[in-house]
Amino acid sequence: MAKQLNVVVWNEFRHEKTKEEVKALYPNGLHAVIKEFLDEDTTLNVRLAALDDPDQGLPDEVLNQTDVLIWWGHKSHKDVSDELTQKIRDRVFLGMGFIALHSGHHSKPFRAIIGTNGNLSWGRNQKEVIWNLMPSHPITKGIPDHFILESEELYSEPFYIPQPDALLFGAWFEDGHIFRAGACFHRGAGKVFYFQPGHETCRSFFNPYVRTIIRNAVHWAAPNETGYEITDECPHLLDKVTDEFSK
Amino acid sequence: MAKQLNVVVWNEFRHEKTKEEVKALYPNGLHAVIKEFLDEDTTLNVRLAALDDPDQGLPDEVLNQTDVLIWWGHKSHKDVSDELTQKIRDRVFLGMGFIALHSGHHSKPFRAIIGTNGNLSWGRNQKEVIWNLMPSHPITKGIPDHFILESEELYSEPFYIPQPDALLFGAWFEDGHIFRAGACFHRGAGKVFYFQPGHETCRSFFNPYVRTIIRNAVHWAAPNETGYEITDECPHLLDKVTDEFSK
Amino acid sequence: MAKQLNVVVWNEFRHEKTKEEVKALYPNGLHAVIKEFLDEDTTLNVRLAALDDPDQGLPDEVLNQTDVLIWWGHKSHKDVSDELTQKIRDRVFLGMGFIALHSGHHSKPFRAIIGTNGNLSWGRNQKEVIWNLMPSHPITKGIPDHFILESEELYSEPFYIPQPDALLFGAWFEDGHIFRAGACFHRGAGKVFYFQPGHETCRSFFNPYVRTIIRNAVHWAAPNETGYEITDECPHLLDKVTDEFSK
Amino acid sequence: MAKQLNVVVWNEFRHEKTKEEVKALYPNGLHAVIKEFLDEDTTLNVRLAALDDPDQGLPDEVLNQTDVLIWWGHKSHKDVSDELTQKIRDRVFLGMGFIALHSGHHSKPFRAIIGTNGNLSWGRNQKEVIWNLMPSHPITKGIPDHFILESEELYSEPFYIPQPDALLFGAWFEDGHIFRAGACFHRGAGKVFYFQPGHETCRSFFNPYVRTIIRNAVHWAAPNETGYEITDECPHLLDKVTDEFSK
Repeated sequence: MAKQLNVVVWNEFRHEKTKEEVKALYPNGLHAVIKEFLDEDTTLNVRLAALDDPDQGLPDEVLNQTDVLIWWGHKSHKDVSDELTQKIRDRVFLGMGFIALHSGHHSKPFRAIIGTNGNLSWGRNQKEVIWNLMPSHPITKGIPDHFILESEELYSEPFYIPQPDALLFGAWFEDGHIFRAGACFHRGAGKVFYFQPGHETCRSFFNPYVRTIIRNAVHWAAPNETGYEITDECPHLLDKVTDEFSK
Repeated sequence: MAKQLNVVVWNEFRHEKTKEEVKALYPNGLHAVIKEFLDEDTTLNVRLAALDDPDQGLPDEVLNQTDVLIWWGHKSHKDVSDELTQKIRDRVFLGMGFIALHSGHHSKPFRAIIGTNGNLSWGRNQKEVIWNLMPSHPITKGIPDHFILESEELYSEPFYIPQPDALLFGAWFEDGHIFRAGACFHRGAGKVFYFQPGHETCRSFFNPYVRTIIRNAVHWAAPNETGYEITDECPHLLDKVTDEFSK
Repeated sequence: MAKQLNVVVWNEFRHEKTKEEVKALYPNGLHAVIKEFLDEDTTLNVRLAALDDPDQGLPDEVLNQTDVLIWWGHKSHKDVSDELTQKIRDRVFLGMGFIALHSGHHSKPFRAIIGTNGNLSWGRNQKEVIWNLMPSHPITKGIPDHFILESEELYSEPFYIPQPDALLFGAWFEDGHIFRAGACFHRGAGKVFYFQPGHETCRSFFNPYVRTIIRNAVHWAAPNETGYEITDECPHLLDKVTDEFSK
Repeated sequence: MAKQLNVVVWNEFRHEKTKEEVKALYPNGLHAVIKEFLDEDTTLNVRLAALDDPDQGLPDEVLNQTDVLIWWGHKSHKDVSDELTQKIRDRVFLGMGFIALHSGHHSKPFRAIIGTNGNLSWGRNQKEVIWNLMPSHPITKGIPDHFILESEELYSEPFYIPQPDALLFGAWFEDGHIFRAGACFHRGAGKVFYFQPGHETCRSFFNPYVRTIIRNAVHWAAPNETGYEITDECPHLLDKVTDEFSK
């Protein structure tokens, strides 16, 4: 039987309490909807976390057991503590998976992990077409060559991310813009996926292809079963070298 | 003074003789228009070549002196000889630059050099917006964050190229499609640039940004002044190793 | 239950018949040893093929059912037909996995799929240390930060391959050389892995880490279950576009 | 005439004052030696900066005029202020070049710009062979296929950097280790080069190939003359979109 993965869906979870339009769409928070469709996959053990929870939702005992952390933040990036940001970043470098959704491009953890200011341009909600650029990648499993989101927030290039290790999806927007909408990054011993759909006033998290992509991404981002222990060290090798190689 | 670069602009040069619309736009061939704007750069020594010239335009004495080869072909890819294709490919692996324009994505040399079937989807001429994805790259020097081509042939993803070493431009098309419109590849000791604009019934080769990009690309693709001679060999190292390292 | 994968281990299979030293090590061919350890994985359906078999071991009915093709060739690369080379290349572009072992760097299929002359330098058998450069990748699952092969053929940089999509392993050799020993490439809809150990007079195919890597690579290279059919076409989009996007 | 580039060579500059061995080799600091050979290139305007200078050597009026910042730090990474680190990082994202030498892999700016913990293993000084992996790249101009440093500090894989945009050099060390010794990264609108030689007790900065590589890297890392102004913003596009595209 497949190994059980611990997944945390972290949500800023403020729009859903203050904006009627968002509340109507995601009454329990958009993270609850993400958990709902991930729960259909019995190999995943999914829990919720929110900015206004104790320890900003990620006390050490939770974070240190997390295999894949999904992150949705928007208006309150600055409220995430630098200390938590650093803990998340360091855990990714040691192997934890990290999936940044939508406005998470500007979140503190994404910026610190990737090495980017996360800048892009943005505009009104409109029709988006998502194109599959890499049919050989596990995250595109089951995804057609393109699919349509009737309404998403416009995100536009230039998007000041580094070149990804794998560029999976590109987006077309009605108003004349394109966007690198799905991108994989290896950082240290960890894996990171950025995926653009998921504005709080849009229904993208109900789209079956968006759901498949996020589910595929969780499995792809899961920590590798490495053949050695990866620690946060910069060790001196003298004795090891002497013993092993120098005969 | 900057080193003089030998550039050959190779054109299938058949549409210009048979289709009135193309003849009107490019009476001396589209390669002549490319040569014209490259000639403004006095460090370039530009010559023309065409499929129906002797030796398909590239006798050994020309090919072996070429620093950067620009390639435009469309309907007659199959008429390019396998022998010439192989000579071009092997010279790129030894350092020659190669720039494939527009329908050159399906040319024999591009496919053999890159490792691709070159497949894509295509459609009617329409408005295209080209987005600059990599403002740090020498080929994007002087190019704004985006520019518009009022009419270009639709080229659409999925485009079955390998992930490029640098993805410089992405294209938006009116009908809902996007395309990786400018991409750099390192192959062996040589450099390759693919650039999508340039349909024979469109005016893209008169666009100042398209011209800047092609000129920048010629300089980027020029052979590196390597510190050793690169030959087409797979040498055995025994004596060299013994002499140099093993004391 | 996991999907069954059809794997073919193709071997030139001539050294084992003519050189005593090789015959002693691999009496039934080195492909038989590879099959033996792959057979321990019950999700794999492994068969053997050799250059001197009918249809060079890969009649259409076999090739067209193959999910992952493993390739070992050395002295007889030129005897592999151009027609078969082209069939293999085209199938990789449509999704088949391809694993080139050791001297397969110079094989016709590897060169045609990747876009390389495959050149490198080589020398006497000696101690090799293989370093794990990417602990986040599925192919390095279970592999320590390094392991030692007491005797392998020296392969040295410069190795004229394109930059890989993922560089997994680097090799150290006693005589002062290094080599990019394990590298992943995406080509079209297919995945390719090159792995350097496996000289015919060495025991690397008996090394447990080499075996783990090859087994991991088979699973990684398996065709993706794409959400659309990938065919060898360059389709015109006019009608599709009109229907789907233009309302 | 070529544009003048403003280059700052920043050095921790403490070993040279406290350790006799280092003082003997670099009496005015190793940055002074770097400046000396860069000064031979009349297109470069080079100045020195040190950790114990006012404003840690980089007051705003200097930093904001710097085109390429070279960084050497070792034992005092923690003394570099977080504020300065952030200013450097942000300027790289807007286009400034950054070259991290040797132990700069663990410096605050390198880690923040790249997205890495910078970890590696290290050991005693020994013979190093540097191999040229990318003869097509401007930084390898004039460099042979390999060269030898008689004594350098051992740096070993695993090196927990992201996959670089271009991997230029690999190193072989006597004791059985290898290292990705020269690597290029694009970050935002800026370019970053990491180069491993340069231990404070070694003579690498007197090696002609090391000097050529650093000089080439300065030119490669220089800010691109972009065709638009890059600012640290995430602009809303509504009006722009309406005006330009929506007719």
